[in-house]
Amino acid sequence: MARAYNFSPGPAMLPEAVLRQAQADMLEWGGAGASIVEMSHRGPEFLQVARQAEADLRELLAIPDDYAVLFPAGGATTQQALIALNFADPGQRVDYVVSGHWGRTALKQLVSVDVNVAASGEAGGFRGIPAREEWRLSDDAAYVHITANETIHGVEFRPAWGHVPPETGKVPLFADFSSSIASEPIDVSKYGLIYAGAQKNLGPVGISVVIVRRDLLERAGQPRADIFDYRSQLKGESMLNTPPTWNWYVLGLTVRWMLDEGGTAEFDRRSDEKARLLYAAIDGSGGFYRNDVDASVRSRMNVPFFLVDQALDAAFLDGAREAGLIGLKGHRVLGGMRASLYNPMPVAGVQALADYMREFQKRHG
Amino acid sequence: MARAYNFSPGPAMLPEAVLRQAQADMLEWGGAGASIVEMSHRGPEFLQVARQAEADLRELLAIPDDYAVLFPAGGATTQQALIALNFADPGQRVDYVVSGHWGRTALKQLVSVDVNVAASGEAGGFRGIPAREEWRLSDDAAYVHITANETIHGVEFRPAWGHVPPETGKVPLFADFSSSIASEPIDVSKYGLIYAGAQKNLGPVGISVVIVRRDLLERAGQPRADIFDYRSQLKGESMLNTPPTWNWYVLGLTVRWMLDEGGTAEFDRRSDEKARLLYAAIDGSGGFYRNDVDASVRSRMNVPFFLVDQALDAAFLDGAREAGLIGLKGHRVLGGMRASLYNPMPVAGVQALADYMREFQKRHG
Repeated sequence: MARAYNFSPGPAMLPEAVLRQAQADMLEWGGAGASIVEMSHRGPEFLQVARQAEADLRELLAIPDDYAVLFPAGGATTQQALIALNFADPGQRVDYVVSGHWGRTALKQLVSVDVNVAASGEAGGFRGIPAREEWRLSDDAAYVHITANETIHGVEFRPAWGHVPPETGKVPLFADFSSSIASEPIDVSKYGLIYAGAQKNLGPVGISVVIVRRDLLERAGQPRADIFDYRSQLKGESMLNTPPTWNWYVLGLTVRWMLDEGGTAEFDRRSDEKARLLYAAIDGSGGFYRNDVDASVRSRMNVPFFLVDQALDAAFLDGAREAGLIGLKGHRVLGGMRASLYNPMPVAGVQALADYMREFQKRHG
Repeated sequence: MARAYNFSPGPAMLPEAVLRQAQADMLEWGGAGASIVEMSHRGPEFLQVARQAEADLRELLAIPDDYAVLFPAGGATTQQALIALNFADPGQRVDYVVSGHWGRTALKQLVSVDVNVAASGEAGGFRGIPAREEWRLSDDAAYVHITANETIHGVEFRPAWGHVPPETGKVPLFADFSSSIASEPIDVSKYGLIYAGAQKNLGPVGISVVIVRRDLLERAGQPRADIFDYRSQLKGESMLNTPPTWNWYVLGLTVRWMLDEGGTAEFDRRSDEKARLLYAAIDGSGGFYRNDVDASVRSRMNVPFFLVDQALDAAFLDGAREAGLIGLKGHRVLGGMRASLYNPMPVAGVQALADYMREFQKRHG
């Protein structure tokens, strides 16, 4: 088939311009006699690529100078383990707000700290986020952890929920932004630490981004391997050992593409439009399609939805594929469908999905 | 320039056939409507790629069924931290044999264990490996750790050193094989655990391989995050969270290429030939070029060498680049030059290097 509109939750659709550049560079990068994936990370060519990626990311997200940026290998779950090791003393209280599957998974990465689940949407099936007034925060916590957007449950901290980001007083706010980073302008200075796997809004799989207020790096934390120490990683420019160079390069291409498209203000506008199109198709279906998330926290990035009869699921997915719409099968935790609308997904793709949904309903409703 | 012979130590040269396949698949893989780097790791397409890569790696290395294989994100240094967490009880003795820079770095990844450096080549400038009879091993160690090949110091456990792998009695032998895996047939059953970053002999950067005897996974180890638990990773097929899919796919292509070329027996033969060519150029230079490693443990994979006058280094590197030979600058720890001769480096590349070295000496000797 031709290239489809790919609604995968991550790894996810990349801009075609980025893929074409990666394709063109695959055998040789910039007259250097080798592909980026073959080059030493210590050579001038890759260092240029890496530093440009950081400079562009700082521009895209308006990251203040008193924040450091790391580019660790792997995904966000590893960072969930490392933030506790780096920023909480042994036995120290840490506060977690759980608004979905990934917030709950974060708890499994914690050892040797005193975990306080300050609020959780679990009793309500993760359809909402408890109001800020209901959170039971600790004065002496090392940090408060939230998941800015829940990829599986489709729950996102949105302005309609209340003040975003939530106020946490003197305790720094740490946020997993894996599936919503760069989808709108944010005020980085309101956070102590932001982390994100890149494979949703920032480009390729296999690399993450950590944005951390520099003064927090002075904390002792827990005994840990040097490779797990953010301070060592910062000193080593995220190259204590060989970094995932190709992934870093594609991340850089994707960030550059986002800047060229108009930056986070433009993606905020597009995200609004895409979400409006899809939720309208669901809510206007008279119950044929259903999304159960509270309107105040409905995600613009990941939209889980269910057909009125799950016996229709297979036909829905088959027809979607024939219409050039792929990656719509829901996560096994929830079943049903899920459409992920990250920055590289064009408005036209979501329009095509909404059209298909109406047409499918006509045939099967 | 055209594609050069790339002697980089890792990331390193890949087979051109692998790069061409990755290039062809970059916009769409196998009629699936998306690139591999855009596809869900839970979809049938990527699962097929991942499982085929494991099957091919098992064939290439003749891995017995009672060994599990993991494909973690990131590099070998992370595994150096994880093996202590997974296989040593809190405070338990672990034995390390240090034969170069990376063996020494491994020590920095250890916390909450009782580290015994059983032998070290450091006093001799890492030019040799202490004889097995000199090792001070502990009867109650969780494991004995060696570095099969030292990428920077160019020191490798070779048959001329003595019995390889070294006998460790009832204590399992753990080995960092990052820079020599698949360069010759090995008897996996002699090891408790083998790990390797892929970016040298196994293909792309950003992913590692861990081969571990299954019964060792029953050990309690230390309190650790779920994402750092090899048992959880095995249960989750190395997909507890999003794995580095593209890197895994390129690893699979590279392993397939090695099988098609004749497997480890053939690469053993080629490695012998390449090493002989290069060491002959060094040893036959009358001191113009110098490699200081004991003949019994000279690496076939990484050959550090020095010019008689380091004022000539820049001219040597410039001339090499003009001759289509890149990646020869030595690691900052040692200075001088280093040529890495991993499986994708053809014999013709090493012949070209040896020819260039003789010609350079004629002009400057």
